[in-house]
Amino acid sequence: MSDKDLGVVAIGNALVDVLAHATDEFIEQQQRDHGMQPGAMTLIERLRAVELYGMMGPGTEVSGGSAANTMAGFASFGGKGGFIGKVADDQLGEIFRHDLRSSGIEFDTPALVASEPTGRCLILVTDDGNRTMNTFLGAAVELNEHDIDEDIIKRAKVLYLEGYLFDRDQAKAAFRKAAEIAKKHGTKVALSLSDPFCVDRHKADFIDLVDNHVDILFANEQEIMSLYDVFEWDQVPAIIEQKDLIGALTRSEKGSVIIENDQIFEVPTPQVKVLDTTGAGDAYAAGFLFGFTEGMDLYKCGELGSAAAAEVIQIMGPRTDKKLAELVSRAA
Amino acid sequence: MSDKDLGVVAIGNALVDVLAHATDEFIEQQQRDHGMQPGAMTLIERLRAVELYGMMGPGTEVSGGSAANTMAGFASFGGKGGFIGKVADDQLGEIFRHDLRSSGIEFDTPALVASEPTGRCLILVTDDGNRTMNTFLGAAVELNEHDIDEDIIKRAKVLYLEGYLFDRDQAKAAFRKAAEIAKKHGTKVALSLSDPFCVDRHKADFIDLVDNHVDILFANEQEIMSLYDVFEWDQVPAIIEQKDLIGALTRSEKGSVIIENDQIFEVPTPQVKVLDTTGAGDAYAAGFLFGFTEGMDLYKCGELGSAAAAEVIQIMGPRTDKKLAELVSRAA
Repeated sequence: MSDKDLGVVAIGNALVDVLAHATDEFIEQQQRDHGMQPGAMTLIERLRAVELYGMMGPGTEVSGGSAANTMAGFASFGGKGGFIGKVADDQLGEIFRHDLRSSGIEFDTPALVASEPTGRCLILVTDDGNRTMNTFLGAAVELNEHDIDEDIIKRAKVLYLEGYLFDRDQAKAAFRKAAEIAKKHGTKVALSLSDPFCVDRHKADFIDLVDNHVDILFANEQEIMSLYDVFEWDQVPAIIEQKDLIGALTRSEKGSVIIENDQIFEVPTPQVKVLDTTGAGDAYAAGFLFGFTEGMDLYKCGELGSAAAAEVIQIMGPRTDKKLAELVSRAA
Repeated sequence: MSDKDLGVVAIGNALVDVLAHATDEFIEQQQRDHGMQPGAMTLIERLRAVELYGMMGPGTEVSGGSAANTMAGFASFGGKGGFIGKVADDQLGEIFRHDLRSSGIEFDTPALVASEPTGRCLILVTDDGNRTMNTFLGAAVELNEHDIDEDIIKRAKVLYLEGYLFDRDQAKAAFRKAAEIAKKHGTKVALSLSDPFCVDRHKADFIDLVDNHVDILFANEQEIMSLYDVFEWDQVPAIIEQKDLIGALTRSEKGSVIIENDQIFEVPTPQVKVLDTTGAGDAYAAGFLFGFTEGMDLYKCGELGSAAAAEVIQIMGPRTDKKLAELVSRAA
């Protein structure tokens, strides 16, 4: 991998998060009336986004998007990386591009002109810190095969794919093209399942991708159980052991379990006061991938993932200003 | 005041804040090269805003603007109010309008179409919590006499004016028109001096307004000393005593001093851990004006102001999600 000057290149939805506090009653009402999924992500259309925003309280806007959050965290650890995703040529698009670039990540996918606005994720945060996401994809929908830049994937040790992209056929095609480019250039492929409902909607495609292209799989308990149609966590390790990949499985406050063939590492997580869980999984992937691309052992990779997630859940929003590189020396 | 269904109507710059951490070295460099004023507000042009944003780290976007922050706080205390200010018909303008309205404040000034974008304030926050503001006014520049809505001012007990508007002649004219409308309808006029440099730039106009139109004057130590060209705080009370107004003077961690003729109240402030001082003065005015419009005594008004400011400096950004109404029962 001597010609590889980047650690990770990610492909994901380019979204700006709009975070606002909400009551459990409001979310329950929206669940009944509009199918909002508490604690998970629901895709919404433009008109619904306008309506929901109108009902939300005052918000905070920060750059988001699952894989983009991971890249911002990866850069904060000291890693070099790139991002492929679609914004529009509007103010939210400028904000998204600025924040990613100023965190040190290369991002050169051209903006969409005179069409849909930059996508946004309306995030309702309840008092217990849980977040319920409502995503209007906007310009992110237009990401397609032509946006996949072979050169930047070739430069990376790991290509990181966000499962949320599977909700659209042309993004799925872009995924496959990127995975083939990765294979050609010796770039490992990592995938995050993103969301149990997303897994459920596209199970066959996910299984095909996992079995044939993925080297590192990120998932939480609900996602991995949804993928393999099992109802008990205890059944999961035996399934992952048989796959030719590394499984990095997160279990909230129980920490994470990392599985590679017959090796299983159980990694604890720091117990901290939760303000907002937005971006916890993204931060875990950032820490894990930083450790992995720096050649650390899998237990250490898991420790860095947990430490990064612990930082992010103590603040509002998915990205922390804190230099995550400090966590590396602390864990050492 | 029986026909008055609103507590306060404010006129101010409609701005979205972009907050990012910065080092003291960066600010010193920008001070040398571009006249940035550490701890204060510098007006910048559009190109400079683009340049400076490009040099800033990842940001958080929240609705700001001094008087608009005060109104959001006033609503959080349980007050009813309105705002007059100019946004553009763009994404940042939508965010500003949404956040103010969803906090419960009436805001119906028409958006500027096909011209300058919504104004923004690029705020650099250093490790000690001090903020250095760089304001690109954008659409806010276009606020003029025609935007002054007589009906809403008539409905309010207090008209609150933000000193920052004095940087532009047509806003100054709008100010004077609003003050005359207030006088006609028995609406008290409150003014915040906003910034020592702003005071210095428009001293004669401020003195004329204070002497002839203002019933309640908000200022911090630097601002009031700049207005009256005195070099010691001890000289200030004697000057204010002679004016026919209430002076609410803030002194950071020393609390505030409220002066009305020969009555002087010294109000302490809660000592808290400072994260970001953005919006401290705005929150003080919110608490004070809530107490005032509810008929509380001046000491209590000052206590509510201090309590609100203490909440805001513990978070990033100028507005807190916390219901400030809780502070009223606590102070009682």
